[in-house]
Amino acid sequence: MNILIVHAHPEPQSFTAALKDTARQTFEQQGHTVEISDLYAMNFNPVASKDDFSSLNQADYLNYALEQRHAFKQHHLAPDIQTEIEKVQRADLVILSFPLYWTSVPAILKGWIDRVFVSGLFYGGKRFYNHGGMLGKKAMLCLTLGGREHMFGEGAVHGPLEHYLSPLQRGTLAYVGFEVLPPYIAYHVPYISQEDRQKILVNFEQYLQGLDDLQPLAFALLENFDDRMNPLP
Amino acid sequence: MNILIVHAHPEPQSFTAALKDTARQTFEQQGHTVEISDLYAMNFNPVASKDDFSSLNQADYLNYALEQRHAFKQHHLAPDIQTEIEKVQRADLVILSFPLYWTSVPAILKGWIDRVFVSGLFYGGKRFYNHGGMLGKKAMLCLTLGGREHMFGEGAVHGPLEHYLSPLQRGTLAYVGFEVLPPYIAYHVPYISQEDRQKILVNFEQYLQGLDDLQPLAFALLENFDDRMNPLP
Repeated sequence: MNILIVHAHPEPQSFTAALKDTARQTFEQQGHTVEISDLYAMNFNPVASKDDFSSLNQADYLNYALEQRHAFKQHHLAPDIQTEIEKVQRADLVILSFPLYWTSVPAILKGWIDRVFVSGLFYGGKRFYNHGGMLGKKAMLCLTLGGREHMFGEGAVHGPLEHYLSPLQRGTLAYVGFEVLPPYIAYHVPYISQEDRQKILVNFEQYLQGLDDLQPLAFALLENFDDRMNPLP
Repeated sequence: MNILIVHAHPEPQSFTAALKDTARQTFEQQGHTVEISDLYAMNFNPVASKDDFSSLNQADYLNYALEQRHAFKQHHLAPDIQTEIEKVQRADLVILSFPLYWTSVPAILKGWIDRVFVSGLFYGGKRFYNHGGMLGKKAMLCLTLGGREHMFGEGAVHGPLEHYLSPLQRGTLAYVGFEVLPPYIAYHVPYISQEDRQKILVNFEQYLQGLDDLQPLAFALLENFDDRMNPLP
């Protein structure tokens, strides 16, 4: 397998980075190839703008998704976007590695999605969910957070974590056709002992060794909807 | 009222911008004061990093939230962050105006939250939800999207839109103490006629004129949880 880890943490010594390094080592020991996009180290630009296209199809009004579609076809995408697209195209598995910022990804990772998941390749027309452009590839979130597990769920103080993750898992990864594996979540990270952190790293290694046995998350199948996306009876 | 509109769209002529302008006019006609942070026009930097602090409390390891707490107290925050904080402090109502990108905000707006909603002021310790730092202020999302209304909801192809909005409405705005008003959502925007767009602008004006009668969204009350954030019986 080729694996792409997209990592977004401003501190290179962070526990999130340790999880990323554990993933790299575990996969390489299994004989897989690992590529890492360390967005902070790359000083990745997260702001979608007209500068992402070396020439514009419609110069007087920016429709970002339409420009993506044209620029992808005509090889007019900015080189940093093109490079990231090719990494995703090479990958059989994409892992997003990040600390939960405001129950979501840090902006630098959101911008990686905004700019790299271009219309025309990742999705377009009726090509989404189980017909999305990334069909046949897997994706997974690996995240760290400060809260404890009992603070999330129905009736818990913060509500279900799956709702917070739905823009990533459903609205992004599943939407473009990835098979989405259950997320790996490290809770309460800033407050736990070095010993407990070590235990999480070992547990994560075992999780990754068992990836093939994980049941992917379930999302919409387009066959259950009509042409206007109304549910079929 | 003082109103802050935080607007994030790369095209100044967009329909999202027209909604923002409608909001400004409507509020000003009512005698309110309106400030606008037009993040693209400001070339706002969305990447949280150690450069956000003029001096670091812990130079060898970046804990971003802890540095925010120290820097806010000691006036060591970067000037662009400090300026935005003061706008929020002046505001009685904050509106986030954006096109839905990947069922979430564009990265430039996510980074505005990451960098501006500093620990120690917006939240900290047991100060969150109905004890959050922004208590007494209101907030509201105003968003545009490409999908149609029937594509969202339980059993619909994309699932409930509230789940996608939960990182913003619950995990961010409600978390820091804002009373969150129901979002204004303009559907199917890239595909509708000028006439239909005009109708939406009129409808939005009426929505804003009736803001006082809107029932805020309901979230957790800390009084219903114990010290470890377990639900009380």
